[in-house]
Amino acid sequence: MKIGLIQCNPVPGALEYNAALLYAGTCAAAAQGADLCIAPELALCGPTAGDLLLQTSFMEGCRFVLNNLADRLRSTPGLPPLLLGAPVYNPVPQGKPLHNCAVLLRDGQVIVISRKVLLPAAGTVDDRRYFEPGISCGVLQHKGWRMAVTVGEDVWNDRTFWQDRRTFDSDPVAEFMGAGGADGLINLTSLAYAQGLPGLHQRVLGWLAIRYRVPVFCANIVGGNDGLVMYGSSMVFDGEGALVARAPAFRESVMVVDMVDKTKRKARPDMSLEEELWQAIVLGTRDFVNKCGGRKIVIGLSGGIDSALVAAIAVEAFGADNVTGIMLPSRFSSKGSVTDSVSLAKSLGIKDLHTIPIEGAMQAFEYSLSGLFQGTAPDTTEENIQSRIRAVILMAFANKFNRLLLATGNKSEIAVGYSTLYGDSCGALAPIGDIYKTQVYSLCRWLNSKRPDYIPLAIIDKAPSAELRPEHKDTDSLPPYDKLDPLLHDHLEMDLGPDALVNAGYDKDMVEKVLSLIRKAEFKRVQSAPVLQMNRRSFGTGWRMPIASRVPGAE
Amino acid sequence: MKIGLIQCNPVPGALEYNAALLYAGTCAAAAQGADLCIAPELALCGPTAGDLLLQTSFMEGCRFVLNNLADRLRSTPGLPPLLLGAPVYNPVPQGKPLHNCAVLLRDGQVIVISRKVLLPAAGTVDDRRYFEPGISCGVLQHKGWRMAVTVGEDVWNDRTFWQDRRTFDSDPVAEFMGAGGADGLINLTSLAYAQGLPGLHQRVLGWLAIRYRVPVFCANIVGGNDGLVMYGSSMVFDGEGALVARAPAFRESVMVVDMVDKTKRKARPDMSLEEELWQAIVLGTRDFVNKCGGRKIVIGLSGGIDSALVAAIAVEAFGADNVTGIMLPSRFSSKGSVTDSVSLAKSLGIKDLHTIPIEGAMQAFEYSLSGLFQGTAPDTTEENIQSRIRAVILMAFANKFNRLLLATGNKSEIAVGYSTLYGDSCGALAPIGDIYKTQVYSLCRWLNSKRPDYIPLAIIDKAPSAELRPEHKDTDSLPPYDKLDPLLHDHLEMDLGPDALVNAGYDKDMVEKVLSLIRKAEFKRVQSAPVLQMNRRSFGTGWRMPIASRVPGAE
Repeated sequence: MKIGLIQCNPVPGALEYNAALLYAGTCAAAAQGADLCIAPELALCGPTAGDLLLQTSFMEGCRFVLNNLADRLRSTPGLPPLLLGAPVYNPVPQGKPLHNCAVLLRDGQVIVISRKVLLPAAGTVDDRRYFEPGISCGVLQHKGWRMAVTVGEDVWNDRTFWQDRRTFDSDPVAEFMGAGGADGLINLTSLAYAQGLPGLHQRVLGWLAIRYRVPVFCANIVGGNDGLVMYGSSMVFDGEGALVARAPAFRESVMVVDMVDKTKRKARPDMSLEEELWQAIVLGTRDFVNKCGGRKIVIGLSGGIDSALVAAIAVEAFGADNVTGIMLPSRFSSKGSVTDSVSLAKSLGIKDLHTIPIEGAMQAFEYSLSGLFQGTAPDTTEENIQSRIRAVILMAFANKFNRLLLATGNKSEIAVGYSTLYGDSCGALAPIGDIYKTQVYSLCRWLNSKRPDYIPLAIIDKAPSAELRPEHKDTDSLPPYDKLDPLLHDHLEMDLGPDALVNAGYDKDMVEKVLSLIRKAEFKRVQSAPVLQMNRRSFGTGWRMPIASRVPGAE
Repeated sequence: MKIGLIQCNPVPGALEYNAALLYAGTCAAAAQGADLCIAPELALCGPTAGDLLLQTSFMEGCRFVLNNLADRLRSTPGLPPLLLGAPVYNPVPQGKPLHNCAVLLRDGQVIVISRKVLLPAAGTVDDRRYFEPGISCGVLQHKGWRMAVTVGEDVWNDRTFWQDRRTFDSDPVAEFMGAGGADGLINLTSLAYAQGLPGLHQRVLGWLAIRYRVPVFCANIVGGNDGLVMYGSSMVFDGEGALVARAPAFRESVMVVDMVDKTKRKARPDMSLEEELWQAIVLGTRDFVNKCGGRKIVIGLSGGIDSALVAAIAVEAFGADNVTGIMLPSRFSSKGSVTDSVSLAKSLGIKDLHTIPIEGAMQAFEYSLSGLFQGTAPDTTEENIQSRIRAVILMAFANKFNRLLLATGNKSEIAVGYSTLYGDSCGALAPIGDIYKTQVYSLCRWLNSKRPDYIPLAIIDKAPSAELRPEHKDTDSLPPYDKLDPLLHDHLEMDLGPDALVNAGYDKDMVEKVLSLIRKAEFKRVQSAPVLQMNRRSFGTGWRMPIASRVPGAE
C-alpha cells in the first residue's frame, strides 16, 4: 500500500480554500499511485483557528465543507480515501462540544476514525479549551493493512522514551499496541517550529517505529499562522526505525511512500541552525502578510543590524520590488545611519528608498510641550518622542500606500523593554522578535557567508546604538549582549529562577537587574507587534504573564 | 462553630504581601470569635499569576511563604486554623506539576485538604495549563463538624441545576455527598465579574444548600487583576438555601458567620446594573494602576462622552487631584471639544487641565510627507496622523511626569476597529473597553441621576464624532449605535453566527459588514490597551482569535 502525505498550508478559518488544498493534494498523490492519503491535524480549519472553534456557525461550516469534500473526492474517478485532521462534534452532551479528530473520507462518507486523546494545555496550544479528549487511538483497515491512527501529541508520551516527568499519565499508543497491535502507525500533527524541535520530533517517531516494529507515517502541517510557523518535514520510518523519507521543511509538499519501502532514500541533508531559522522566519513573515491579504512592505532603516536583517528577510519573502525602506534620521543620528542604509538597500536591491528627517516634527513637539515641560531635564521622554515620530511616519506611509510595517525589534530588547512602546515596537509583525541579538549577528554573518557583503560590514561591525541621544550606546543601560543573551536564554527558555541563575555563575546584581527589567516590560509586550516563535519559548501566546504584579527577586 | 470568610485582594506574584493580608484577615476574624477561617482560591499567589506558576523558583517561593504563614499563625495566641487556596506540588511524577488546592494551616502544619477536580479551560481561565486535576472533594473535621471542601468550579456542575450541556462529566460534590455526606460545604473561589454572573453564582450556591440540606460557605477573592475584576460578595447560605450573609461586592472584607445561624440578616440590597458596572470599573482601574505601582493619571479629553466617562472613573478611583486632563484640539475640532471639556473638568474637580493644539505637529508631518504623498488624496491616513500625534503628546506627558495614560475606547469601537492603532488605542488600560457605546450613555445618565449635570449635558447630547475631518460623524461609517450594539452583543456574547443573526431579524447587509469589520480589526486589538472585562465576554485573554485568517461570512 502506498500512502500519500499531504503537507499543506491551510489558512485559519478559510474552510473552502483549505478543502481545495486537500482536494488538490489528493489528486497529486493519486497521480503518484497513492492508495491512501493522509493530511495533518486540523488541516480543514487551520491549525490556529482559536476561538472560531467556539462559534456554532463556524462548526456548521466545517461540517458542510467536510461533506462537500467527501462528495467531490468520490465524484472524481481514481482518487484514494483521504484521512485528514478536522474538528468534529462530540456526540456526548457533556464536556466540550468538539473532538480533535482524524476523519476518513471514503466513498462519499465522513467517518471519524480517531479522537485525539492527549490534549495539551501548554506552550502555545490550548486544545483543552476547545476539545473533549477521546478514549483511545483509532484503527483504519485499508487494502488488507491495519493501521493505528493517532492525532498530534498522542504519540508523544512514551514512557520508554522520556526519562523525566511526562505531561500525561496515559499512553494511547502503548495501550493500542498492547491490545492487538497494528501493521503501521499514522500520526496527523500540527507542530510549530521551535529551535531543536524538528530533531526531537524525528527521534520520538523513530523510537516508536523501533519499539513497535511498525512503519510510522507522520503528516505535519506547514506554514506561518500568526506567531507560529508550522515546519512540515512530514516523515516516514520503516519498522526498524530508519528514516525512509522526509518531506521538505517550510514548504508545501505531496510525498508518496510505500508501506514496505525499506530503501533508504538519499537523505535530505539536515539544515544548519541558521538556515533553519532563516527559512522559518521568511515563511512566517510571508504567510502572515499574505494571509492578512497584504503583499507590500515598509521598513524603517536605521543603519543598525536589526533593521538590516529584517529588510533582508522582507526582500527574500516578497522580492525587493515590494519592499520600501524609509530612513528617518534625527539630530542624534550618526552619518552611517543614512549611508549604511543606502549601501544596504543597494546590496539588497531595494529601489524604493526615502529619507525623511524627523527634525521638523521633533521641533513641533518640543514647541508644543515647551510650556508643560518647562523646568524639567531631558530624559527618556524625549527619546521616546523621536521613536514615536518615526512610527507616525512609517504608519502614515503604510496606511497611504496599503503596506504592512514590519517591526525590527529583537528578543533581547523585547525581553528587557529596551524599546519604545508605540515607537519602534510598532508593526504588523516582528519577524525577529524571538531572535536574540547575538543570533541576529549569527544570521547576518551566515547570510554574508553565502553572499559576501550582502549585509554591509559597516552595519555588522558598529556598536549597537538606538541613537536617541548624543553618544548613545546600548551598553549605557544594558550588559553587553554576549553576557545578557545567555542569561535571558537560561531564564526564558530554561525557566531558571534568580537563585538558580546565581548558582549557575551569573552575577547576582545583573540577575536582579535583568529579571526586574523583564517583569517591568510586560506592559510593553502586551501592546507590541506579534513575534514569530523561533526559540523554545517566545513572547506571545505561549507567554502568559500578569502585567500588574510584584514578583520576588524581580521587584 | 463560627467561620470567618476572608475576602482579600491579593497582588499576583506578591507572596509575602498576600500572606500578610491573610494573616491580618485571620486576626480580624479571630477578634470576632471565628473558630475557622477560610480564604479564596489561589489567595496566596494571586488569582492571575499565569505563567509565574511554571517557574520552579516561584513555586519554591509559594512553599516557603506558606510554611512561614503557618508558623506565624501558630505563634500568635488565639488564632483559629486557616483554610486557604494555594498551588501545591503534585506528588505524582506524571501530569502537571501542581494542584490547585485548599490548604489547611493548623498548629504550624500545612495540610492539603482538597485538590480542585474540575479544571476549566475556558473564557479567561487556563487552569489546565498549570494544574493536574484532583480526584474528589476533601473533608475538613473541626470542632465536631464535618465539612466538605471544594475549590472553584467543583461546585458548578450540578446536573439538577443545569438544563443544558455541562462543561464536565463528573460532579465531585454529588459524589462526595452520596458517599457519607457532610455537615456543611465550603467553597474557595476566585470569580471575575461579568454582567449577570454574581446573580447566577448566588443561585448555584443556594441550590446546593437546598439539594444537600447543608449550610454553604463561599469565600471569593476581590480586586482588579489586569483585565479581570474579582467581585467578592462572599456568601453564606443556611441548610434551607436562604442567603444568611453576603460580604460587600468590590471591596475587602472579613465576615464571621455561625454554622447554625439562621437569622437572615438585613439583606444588603442588590445593586443596580449601572452601579455594579461603575464599582467594578472603578475598582479594576484603581487596582490596575496601583498594582503597577502608579498613582497618577493622564487622560486626553476630546469633549466626547467616552473620555468624559473615563475621566469620571479616574476621579472616583484616584481623586481629582491625581488626574490630569489634556485637550488636543485640531483644525477639525468643534468649539465644544474644548469648552465642554472645560466644563467637565470643572464639574469633576480636575484642576490640572492643559490645552495643547496639534496644528503645529500636523503641519510638520504634512510638510515631511508632502513629497511622498504628492498627488494622493486625503484619506484615513491623515485622520490617523492626528490621532497618533495626540498619543505622542499624551505619552510624553505620562513619561515625563510618571503618570499612566488611560485609553478611552469603548467596546463598540474596539469591536469594529473604529479607532486608530497607536493613536486613541494607546494607554496602560482601557477602563471602558468592554462597555458598549449605549452602555456608556446609560452609565453617564446614571451618574447624572445621582449628581445632576455631573457629566455636562452638552457632552451627552452631541452626536458621536471622532472629529478627524470636517463634519465627521460616527454614523458616516457605522450603523447608529442603538442598531449596532444589539448586533455586537448577540454575536460577541451570545455566539450567534451570520445566519442566526439574519434569522434573528438583523439586516443581512449590516450583519455582513459588521462581522467583516470585527474580523479585520483583530490586528488592532492585539496591540491595543488591555480592557477590563465587564460583559460576558471581553476582548482580551478570553478572546483568542487568529489575526491572519479568512472566515466564511466575514470576508
